Amino acid sequence: MEVHTTQCCILMGCLCLFYPWSQVCEWREPEELAALLDLELRENGEPQHQLLQRIRDVAKYSVKTNHPRFFNQLFAGVDYHALTGRFLTEALNTSQYTYEVAPVFVLMEDEVLSKLRSLVGWAEGDGIFCPGGTMSNMYAMNVARYRAFPEVKLKGMWSLPRLAVFTSQQSHYSVMKAAAFQGIGTENVFKVKVDDRGCMIPEDLGETIELAKSQGAVPFFVHATSGTTVQGAFDPLEPIADICDRQGLWMHVDVTDSVTWNPHKMMLTGLQCSAILLKDTTHLLKHCHSADAKYLFQQDKFYDTSLDTGDKSIQCGRKVDCLKLWLMWKAVGSKGLEERVDRAFTHTRYLVEEMKRREGFELIGKPLFVNVCFWFIPPSLRGKENSPDYNDRLSKVAPVIKERMMKQGTMMLGYQPQGGRVNFFRMIVISPQLSHQDMTFCLNEIERLGSDL
Amino acid sequence: MEVHTTQCCILMGCLCLFYPWSQVCEWREPEELAALLDLELRENGEPQHQLLQRIRDVAKYSVKTNHPRFFNQLFAGVDYHALTGRFLTEALNTSQYTYEVAPVFVLMEDEVLSKLRSLVGWAEGDGIFCPGGTMSNMYAMNVARYRAFPEVKLKGMWSLPRLAVFTSQQSHYSVMKAAAFQGIGTENVFKVKVDDRGCMIPEDLGETIELAKSQGAVPFFVHATSGTTVQGAFDPLEPIADICDRQGLWMHVDVTDSVTWNPHKMMLTGLQCSAILLKDTTHLLKHCHSADAKYLFQQDKFYDTSLDTGDKSIQCGRKVDCLKLWLMWKAVGSKGLEERVDRAFTHTRYLVEEMKRREGFELIGKPLFVNVCFWFIPPSLRGKENSPDYNDRLSKVAPVIKERMMKQGTMMLGYQPQGGRVNFFRMIVISPQLSHQDMTFCLNEIERLGSDL
Repeated sequence: MEVHTTQCCILMGCLCLFYPWSQVCEWREPEELAALLDLELRENGEPQHQLLQRIRDVAKYSVKTNHPRFFNQLFAGVDYHALTGRFLTEALNTSQYTYEVAPVFVLMEDEVLSKLRSLVGWAEGDGIFCPGGTMSNMYAMNVARYRAFPEVKLKGMWSLPRLAVFTSQQSHYSVMKAAAFQGIGTENVFKVKVDDRGCMIPEDLGETIELAKSQGAVPFFVHATSGTTVQGAFDPLEPIADICDRQGLWMHVDVTDSVTWNPHKMMLTGLQCSAILLKDTTHLLKHCHSADAKYLFQQDKFYDTSLDTGDKSIQCGRKVDCLKLWLMWKAVGSKGLEERVDRAFTHTRYLVEEMKRREGFELIGKPLFVNVCFWFIPPSLRGKENSPDYNDRLSKVAPVIKERMMKQGTMMLGYQPQGGRVNFFRMIVISPQLSHQDMTFCLNEIERLGSDL
Repeated sequence: MEVHTTQCCILMGCLCLFYPWSQVCEWREPEELAALLDLELRENGEPQHQLLQRIRDVAKYSVKTNHPRFFNQLFAGVDYHALTGRFLTEALNTSQYTYEVAPVFVLMEDEVLSKLRSLVGWAEGDGIFCPGGTMSNMYAMNVARYRAFPEVKLKGMWSLPRLAVFTSQQSHYSVMKAAAFQGIGTENVFKVKVDDRGCMIPEDLGETIELAKSQGAVPFFVHATSGTTVQGAFDPLEPIADICDRQGLWMHVDVTDSVTWNPHKMMLTGLQCSAILLKDTTHLLKHCHSADAKYLFQQDKFYDTSLDTGDKSIQCGRKVDCLKLWLMWKAVGSKGLEERVDRAFTHTRYLVEEMKRREGFELIGKPLFVNVCFWFIPPSLRGKENSPDYNDRLSKVAPVIKERMMKQGTMMLGYQPQGGRVNFFRMIVISPQLSHQDMTFCLNEIERLGSDL
């Protein structure tokens, strides 16, 4: 009986997926939405027809992140094979910590991580899937600290000199969060200058390292970025690696020590799918994170317990995140994945050319990746670049256009200020389902929504 | 076309679910399984029939954690409404960080957390869903540290005195992992003695706090446990709370400051679903974890940005974990959930009575929860309790029976040594789908598999 209800619910869930949603979102004010959804959890259960209506409502008022006009985040689109892998993962419900309860997924994770490492250029190494990129970055910082000062695990930070972390002014905020969470402190994160495109300036890294040392701090970790959050900038990895080599520092993201790779972004696996890859072959992950829990990792098991991954992670139960990526890869091959990335770059170029042809679109640099950053200059501001309130008025344009697009539900893209630049749009071009019409629609829509500004 | 393949895959995934699997697992040695699965990721994609076969293989060789004879972990069984919620979550693929991209789920998370808090007895407070219980525990420790020493966020641990954490000898290893990860150090985790049942002895907590102080450490965090991992013991919360009150310490798990609640265990929502609940109303979570990323949490948004939860979490992208719990709750009501818990306790009592009636089953204490811990004394060891090699021989019994049950795939339960006790079984009774026959089968099977030992 319960199963029967569920089959209906599952069918309904799938229908929601393939339903041709015309809007990216159906904006409702929070109070109104809360009332529509009737969120309260009560003493008694509800009948089937009401549950089905709830499922329809949840789908209706959720943002359609796989809609071709969703450009708001670093994820978008859908891969149906990955989605199948996600459904199967949910149906098989297990934790990734031991070979015993996750035989298929322990082996699969190992294979997928090895493949990702080989694409980074490493013949050997280590790694693990983490609940998101921030956690992957935290793993990297923790392992780097442990390599430099293994006593930290037992004795804490009091046994260590004051440490220093280096990252660019435009790196992701996870570096700050990691430093705070791990007891390093955000003041010990030194921000390295970037050039106009948002790329770290290696000379300034060298100088900042000297500055930290002169303040009595001990540098141990350089966090470089390939594809920054806003501008999509690539830090120059080779000169940074040279500096790290000379100074004996752990370099994250690049070809030196560790990389965070988020297939839930451009590879379309769906949230969450993030891997931390390490070049290390000395079992640093395990030494750094092990707690040797006897109830889970018995050493008198009848199989090779080195297969149990639980001691590598900081979590205990760990969601299976490899199947969706594996199944998608099997379905389209490395070639298919490569073609998608190429397609995203082609789309980005098309979009940039379209913007150049139109009045009112002012690009912020040439995109280095699939992030297209630009101002929309509304008619009333065109040619007024020199008026004293220009920047102030321009800063108010993106928020208004954003509000209008959300309330009409026609598309979604983000905006933010950065450094000396007032609010500008950031459009992320990822989905392979995207067409030229979608991009043209988006530009027309910005013109329409901003024509009176 | 791609969508068509997927619909088949989804159907196949659902069929795998409802297929009446006779075995809990189909054990294969790692090398053999790797070969059977053909895990390698290649240049080209594969045709549909092969993908369908891969899905069948993944399901076939995975452990059936929803099989009624899976007693191996603190999760088991399946709730089909929660599963529907999980499928829908995957289909809607979004991140929980802003109201903008997750309007339904931001409001829903708030409602669900508020309901969980009310069951804990708090009329107000804060909270967030985390990727697993260990992460929830880490959140608690971090927030507690920040409350005691807010300067830690900026300046790191060097600005703080040496800190001390307290937990029972039988608490979960996540406390050690958290202390290591957050730079506190595992040596600064003081283990408090437990009684025979595995419950923390409050008098020893008081003495251990004094011991830590005499060593120059500053106590700040007491981690109590309601339902320990192995024995299912409950630390006595009231006397512990009294001590924490007197000493001004943050108490986790109980009625004082914060609680980790994992609906992915006994509530059957499926992995991952873990909430950290706080009694705090001063926005500690946000102050402690915020990074104020401008590209995500613009303050000139057109809606109330206090709805954006991203600054409360240490992650950036955060998987939606509330829908599965919410939908299940709507379907069965608080009453239905309560009945399930009652049923699990009834099952546990039945199992215990059955064991008492049989020769060869020696219970370790009276179960305080749904964990049934026991030795199986094989025929050759009965009445030999006083022989010098008794414990040594007994310690080898559980691993052999475990190996046999896995290779025959008939059931799964765990074993471990603990303190002075040699290997004993731990059987977790959670699933509401469990019948008396399943439990009787399990005991008969242990007798059968251990009859020659």
